[in-house]
Amino acid sequence: MANGYLLKGMADKHAVFDLFFRQAPFKGVYAVCYGLNKAIKNISQMQYKEDDIEYLREQKLFSEAFLEYLANWKCELTIRCLEDGRIIFPYEPIMEVEGPLIQCQLIETYLLNCFNFPTLCATKANRMWLTSGKQPILEFGLRRAQGPNGGLTASEAAMVGGCVGTSNVLAGKMQGIRVSGTQAHSWVMAFNSELKAFRAYAELYPDNCILLIDTYDIIEGCKNAIIVGKELQQKGKKLDGVRIDSGDLAYFSRKVRELLDDAGLTETKIVASNDIDEYVIAEIKRNHGVVDLWGIGTKLATCYDDPALGGVYKLVEFEGKPRLKISSNVEKTTIPSKKKLFRIYDKDDYMTGDIMELHDKEHLEEDFVYDPLNPLRFYKIKNPHRVEQLLELKMEKGKIIKKLGGWREAQKTMEQDITHLSEASTRLLNPQKYKVSISKSLHALRTRLIEEYIGNKNNNK
Amino acid sequence: MANGYLLKGMADKHAVFDLFFRQAPFKGVYAVCYGLNKAIKNISQMQYKEDDIEYLREQKLFSEAFLEYLANWKCELTIRCLEDGRIIFPYEPIMEVEGPLIQCQLIETYLLNCFNFPTLCATKANRMWLTSGKQPILEFGLRRAQGPNGGLTASEAAMVGGCVGTSNVLAGKMQGIRVSGTQAHSWVMAFNSELKAFRAYAELYPDNCILLIDTYDIIEGCKNAIIVGKELQQKGKKLDGVRIDSGDLAYFSRKVRELLDDAGLTETKIVASNDIDEYVIAEIKRNHGVVDLWGIGTKLATCYDDPALGGVYKLVEFEGKPRLKISSNVEKTTIPSKKKLFRIYDKDDYMTGDIMELHDKEHLEEDFVYDPLNPLRFYKIKNPHRVEQLLELKMEKGKIIKKLGGWREAQKTMEQDITHLSEASTRLLNPQKYKVSISKSLHALRTRLIEEYIGNKNNNK
Repeated sequence: MANGYLLKGMADKHAVFDLFFRQAPFKGVYAVCYGLNKAIKNISQMQYKEDDIEYLREQKLFSEAFLEYLANWKCELTIRCLEDGRIIFPYEPIMEVEGPLIQCQLIETYLLNCFNFPTLCATKANRMWLTSGKQPILEFGLRRAQGPNGGLTASEAAMVGGCVGTSNVLAGKMQGIRVSGTQAHSWVMAFNSELKAFRAYAELYPDNCILLIDTYDIIEGCKNAIIVGKELQQKGKKLDGVRIDSGDLAYFSRKVRELLDDAGLTETKIVASNDIDEYVIAEIKRNHGVVDLWGIGTKLATCYDDPALGGVYKLVEFEGKPRLKISSNVEKTTIPSKKKLFRIYDKDDYMTGDIMELHDKEHLEEDFVYDPLNPLRFYKIKNPHRVEQLLELKMEKGKIIKKLGGWREAQKTMEQDITHLSEASTRLLNPQKYKVSISKSLHALRTRLIEEYIGNKNNNK
Repeated sequence: MANGYLLKGMADKHAVFDLFFRQAPFKGVYAVCYGLNKAIKNISQMQYKEDDIEYLREQKLFSEAFLEYLANWKCELTIRCLEDGRIIFPYEPIMEVEGPLIQCQLIETYLLNCFNFPTLCATKANRMWLTSGKQPILEFGLRRAQGPNGGLTASEAAMVGGCVGTSNVLAGKMQGIRVSGTQAHSWVMAFNSELKAFRAYAELYPDNCILLIDTYDIIEGCKNAIIVGKELQQKGKKLDGVRIDSGDLAYFSRKVRELLDDAGLTETKIVASNDIDEYVIAEIKRNHGVVDLWGIGTKLATCYDDPALGGVYKLVEFEGKPRLKISSNVEKTTIPSKKKLFRIYDKDDYMTGDIMELHDKEHLEEDFVYDPLNPLRFYKIKNPHRVEQLLELKMEKGKIIKKLGGWREAQKTMEQDITHLSEASTRLLNPQKYKVSISKSLHALRTRLIEEYIGNKNNNK
């Protein structure tokens, strides 16, 4: 396509694309945005090296003019987007990319790759973190990730969602994430007895001792851990935790808590792992399980129950004119025009609705706004307590003009933003829908374009 | 743990670990093995560089002796495994890793990362490929993968499962995979009319012209494509294909086929995309859809309906003695001992069962063999038509002693191997279970170890 745009003299025509998603993952209503800053940074540094050009030439598909264009690639894009870590909702523009058509087009797949999975994984971690009551969660999923680098992507996104650490040591080294782990069953099996295995571990790590107690039998394992915990106490140390990796976690966490408390090991924490997700956390809590720390692998790193976020990237303006893609699925009819995105807060500072407006409007007007899927659902904005503009200019004609934070800043943004989201919208079952609307002007424009298209349908030749 | 093994003088004790999985993915009975050769190659080249050691030292968890061990790391492992591309089943050892305990342990997570997702993704592709009747399938999933490298992992694994190409150009460049793609809706939207957009594309790519016909209306789009197809015919070229990316693919593929055929474009192929997986393929075929080529993204690259393969790595022998992990879940009780793995074929050369045997037995005995999950399910081996030993020695004391093929060899292995698997075992619904058993001797050993453990349970101190 890019080659075609160049040969057709369309390469430099001005285009605007929106990045958005149509459905919040995990049957929820929101997502935690992540991956945009890395995308922008890498797009700004993007270049085609000699061997890239050579490889493309060998495909015998591309013109020399196009290959030369790539070899001299210089980013001229302008990008406005939300901050990483912000709470985002379906249908609203998360990022607007503006510039020469050819450049907008060439970054599409990379951009979606940068956004889709990290946002999905940050959202999954966030759901677990909120369900646990903001307890510490460790990300343990490297062994199920899409290759070593898939694991790094997952570790970082999990932190943005609310995790406190990872078992992925490379993520620790490369991304500065806190690393943490316990022993595996094979440690216990490599000794002649569980007690010997525990003693050996406590001797090695007296300041950081978490014992895995379910290799053979959880209760027996707990008793052995208590023996070691008391020995640690006699040395002025303490047993930090016991980990349970199988069985009924609600029942056994209570049982183990009792045994630990009865033995005076009240400070010893209970770590739970084994196919945990937000639903398991909720059920363990409902059954009065007493888990202090969660180790979450598969369900987090693969986003098990909904492993793809459907972020898409659509042309909304071309040569200064709004564009729209019609579909017989109304959800797939795009929202045309370059936009502003406003977020409204109520008097308690909860976010109550996001509104897309035509970009040239300065302010949000107190008028009717419409559900983009069904204009019969509309409401009128009245005296909004606080209005925020969400899309920020990050890159202008290829130059990054705002500091792009990493996962730490995104995590802080999330921690702040999530306090403004109604708890009703974070429920696991039947969460309250969040209103994303289009302004009256935008609704009118869109309706006009649809009418024009339908009127022209039979002579679309 | 590795640090602990070293300090406890256990680092060099001889261990054997098995890599296996407990459940075939996607409600099927088999998987297509992939990722082992890459793992072995990288394990043989593994080393800890200065900055790695420094990072670990900063964690203040590890002894200098251990850091020195890592700095001087020299692989001494012996690895036996199946060939990449082979059909594999639950509970059998896919790989056996043997050597110093500390080395066996340190590679665990990397090995599982190398095996789990690639095998899962190759299996998913294989199910789609078989369901389509071995039609060409293109992998289109980069935008939903776990980062750019997750996408590369997915592209390669998809090829092993039976795909013919990918839209991931970097996978083409780095892995030599055939790259292929069509235009997006934005190409069509960037022109004043669909017909102009199609004409422009055909002019650019007269030898490789596939037109996306559903931007506005599939039937209108098809009519525009036919106009362009006839123009191509007049130039002695042809329209290679039309792609449908929305709507009822069974209905529209038939409709479009009719229109194309009526216009004399009988050679023009129909490409279908839009959230396709093996179930959609089956349903389209059942409804007499006429799709020639499939573009599959999300459902393949994320392995959507079962995004994690639970490959695990367990200690089966230590200091020459068989080891076992007991669990109250019988599926989680491991199968001890270093093993041989035999595959039996019937007179039609279909595989009929895999048998695990103690490693020191030379041949498979014609005797009773037992389901590892329930010894009440057993059968007697009689006159096996052909018996194959599946685990091959690949690395001996750190030296690779067999050529390690890449994805092309693995794809060929799969194409060969799948012809020996009964079609009943590849059904999407209620596939026939494949028998994986343990030999009489192995069953006896396992039972004895379980009894010993239960006898010792109360004095496990």
